[in-house]
Amino acid sequence: MADSYLDALNLVRQNTPLVQCLTNSVVMQFTANVLLAAGASPAMVDTPAESEAFAQVASGVLINAGTPSAEQYQGMRNAIDGANKAGTPWVLDPVAVGGLAERTLFVEGVVDKHPAAIRGNASEIVALAGLGAGGRGVDATDSVEGALTAGSLLAKRTGAVVAVSGAEDLIVSAGRVTWLRSGHPMLQQVIGTGCSLGALTAAYLGATKDLDRHDEVLAAHAHVGAAGQVAATKASSPGSFAVAFLDALYEVTADDIAQLVETREA
Amino acid sequence: MADSYLDALNLVRQNTPLVQCLTNSVVMQFTANVLLAAGASPAMVDTPAESEAFAQVASGVLINAGTPSAEQYQGMRNAIDGANKAGTPWVLDPVAVGGLAERTLFVEGVVDKHPAAIRGNASEIVALAGLGAGGRGVDATDSVEGALTAGSLLAKRTGAVVAVSGAEDLIVSAGRVTWLRSGHPMLQQVIGTGCSLGALTAAYLGATKDLDRHDEVLAAHAHVGAAGQVAATKASSPGSFAVAFLDALYEVTADDIAQLVETREA
Amino acid sequence: MADSYLDALNLVRQNTPLVQCLTNSVVMQFTANVLLAAGASPAMVDTPAESEAFAQVASGVLINAGTPSAEQYQGMRNAIDGANKAGTPWVLDPVAVGGLAERTLFVEGVVDKHPAAIRGNASEIVALAGLGAGGRGVDATDSVEGALTAGSLLAKRTGAVVAVSGAEDLIVSAGRVTWLRSGHPMLQQVIGTGCSLGALTAAYLGATKDLDRHDEVLAAHAHVGAAGQVAATKASSPGSFAVAFLDALYEVTADDIAQLVETREA
Repeated sequence: MADSYLDALNLVRQNTPLVQCLTNSVVMQFTANVLLAAGASPAMVDTPAESEAFAQVASGVLINAGTPSAEQYQGMRNAIDGANKAGTPWVLDPVAVGGLAERTLFVEGVVDKHPAAIRGNASEIVALAGLGAGGRGVDATDSVEGALTAGSLLAKRTGAVVAVSGAEDLIVSAGRVTWLRSGHPMLQQVIGTGCSLGALTAAYLGATKDLDRHDEVLAAHAHVGAAGQVAATKASSPGSFAVAFLDALYEVTADDIAQLVETREA
Repeated sequence: MADSYLDALNLVRQNTPLVQCLTNSVVMQFTANVLLAAGASPAMVDTPAESEAFAQVASGVLINAGTPSAEQYQGMRNAIDGANKAGTPWVLDPVAVGGLAERTLFVEGVVDKHPAAIRGNASEIVALAGLGAGGRGVDATDSVEGALTAGSLLAKRTGAVVAVSGAEDLIVSAGRVTWLRSGHPMLQQVIGTGCSLGALTAAYLGATKDLDRHDEVLAAHAHVGAAGQVAATKASSPGSFAVAFLDALYEVTADDIAQLVETREA
Repeated sequence: MADSYLDALNLVRQNTPLVQCLTNSVVMQFTANVLLAAGASPAMVDTPAESEAFAQVASGVLINAGTPSAEQYQGMRNAIDGANKAGTPWVLDPVAVGGLAERTLFVEGVVDKHPAAIRGNASEIVALAGLGAGGRGVDATDSVEGALTAGSLLAKRTGAVVAVSGAEDLIVSAGRVTWLRSGHPMLQQVIGTGCSLGALTAAYLGATKDLDRHDEVLAAHAHVGAAGQVAATKASSPGSFAVAFLDALYEVTADDIAQLVETREA
């Protein structure tokens, strides 16, 4: 069972899931390119008038709270309604929750509306579970270890698979905890690698209904982590690393991922 | 006459047309870089308060309906008014028209306001002509062949040169149909290549009044297509392909285009 | 004293200043990547509800007037209030001021609220000082030489360090004028190099209180200029130049800058 998540990569590439991204304007272009390189199809349909209908035809939906405008937040609420009506899995990325009042209010208003997954750094997950004070913008100031309790609480309360990004990633769902060792520190020198991981998680969740959701979330993280490791063998500065990372998302195979990534059930 | 469009490339580089882009936020940065690499000058002036005045000094205007906000749509209507007052050619890119109600309403409200060109994929052109049901986001589900009737109808009704992007591109205006074989499938693995082709079409239309509009639209498509072919000789994965594509837009000569691109008058 | 600005580079890398960017949507992603590559930490918190509080914890704030929406302009006014309450240095980039009514009104309403620095091209600085008619979008039509009078007037009136970007850069503050010879023409073929220089100026101003502000502004310009020179040795077309520029921002040392850049006190 430990390696069943490796099947997901090929299912994404075969099924080209259509991922509706309601995300912050800083990372829209990069997120779309990450989805394309990974084998999915991006659509940034985020306005209140269109987002609900589109969420009913999309394969997966990303809700990233990163640049809050009143209009986009309404678009996000509508998309969540549409996703829930149609059974489309949606992913919540609570960027900088806890530290800033407006987005905290928004995130708290949607977190119990049945996200299929929640992805954030340790500080965000701790804050969202009501256990901490939030990070410094998108930087985590809590450790991933410390987020285990918070992640378990959140997973139990919401039914979501909770993913905590860090030096090691942590994937928590009701009754299962997986640690993932992959990636490279250079990923943090390129804007949008974390945010696009949220989008890729929606792609994996939307690619198939045959796999366990925990495995699908794990697979998205392993894909990004392995691509980061491959990129680091080609480039050691952030401009060329970003290019090599997109290339590696496109090129990496399930065998590569099996070799590069270590998972540990806890 | 068949090759007269090749002169347009040098006219763009000599005249550095100022292209006002009202476009979706996913592709703004890439579109600006495409225009710069191709020899034009981008300006993303898209708010209602400024767009009309700016359209009167711009060389060309792009109206891309891709991420509809109420404010930007008003900015677009104002820009079209300004463009028409000053005789500035403007290009309509009806992204995902037909499939989504809000943008369909907007596009139908402006399509008869004398665009110099309309650029889309087959599904968008078919939907805009009232002959189909629209695509899946930005993906085309109709064939370019099938868009010939729709393009001819639209060209006749609006007076625009209608360009349909696909495996082969189709350029249709009243009394003339040109097929263009160029480009590379990898162009679809990079976000914004289609949207920036709309912007480049505005650049070509704005670069000079000496050429036929049909030729100018053809030239924009040949420039992008040839650059895609050159890029594909340098890179086979999307991160490095995008870099090579921008380089090729900058480097490619009229002779290169003549060698790489096949046109066929129908 | 002439070389004391060289210390600033290492202070940025050690202190990782948190830079709040309220900037136009075309350059957000590139600006964030420039800040990361240079050693700073970006946060694009620009909505009215959040920007004031965030400006009180940020190290520096960028106000770039490039794509004016009513909501973002209100966010900018709030951020300036927050910055001034907390003593956070903020930088004004008056993109295309003079040429367009809406942004001119906005910029004139904030220029006297104690920016630590003002960065623009010659036409923008001349217009902002009330001496000219503005440029063509983001292109400068006045010479940097001609902006010396305007810069001196603005520096005296506002207390800011005024930086004029051009073939040679000009840094003017009360009682001091420095000319900086660095950079490469290819920098103008990549969108956002000027806008991100404004953000980097905020990073340098926020990295430390130990240095003179004039030196900090000079250091930001020298960092970008030297990186442009290094990139030009690696790439001669805009796609690969942009990649090499980000790499060089990350790699360049104070010694490299001392060798590549010429400063002249006037």
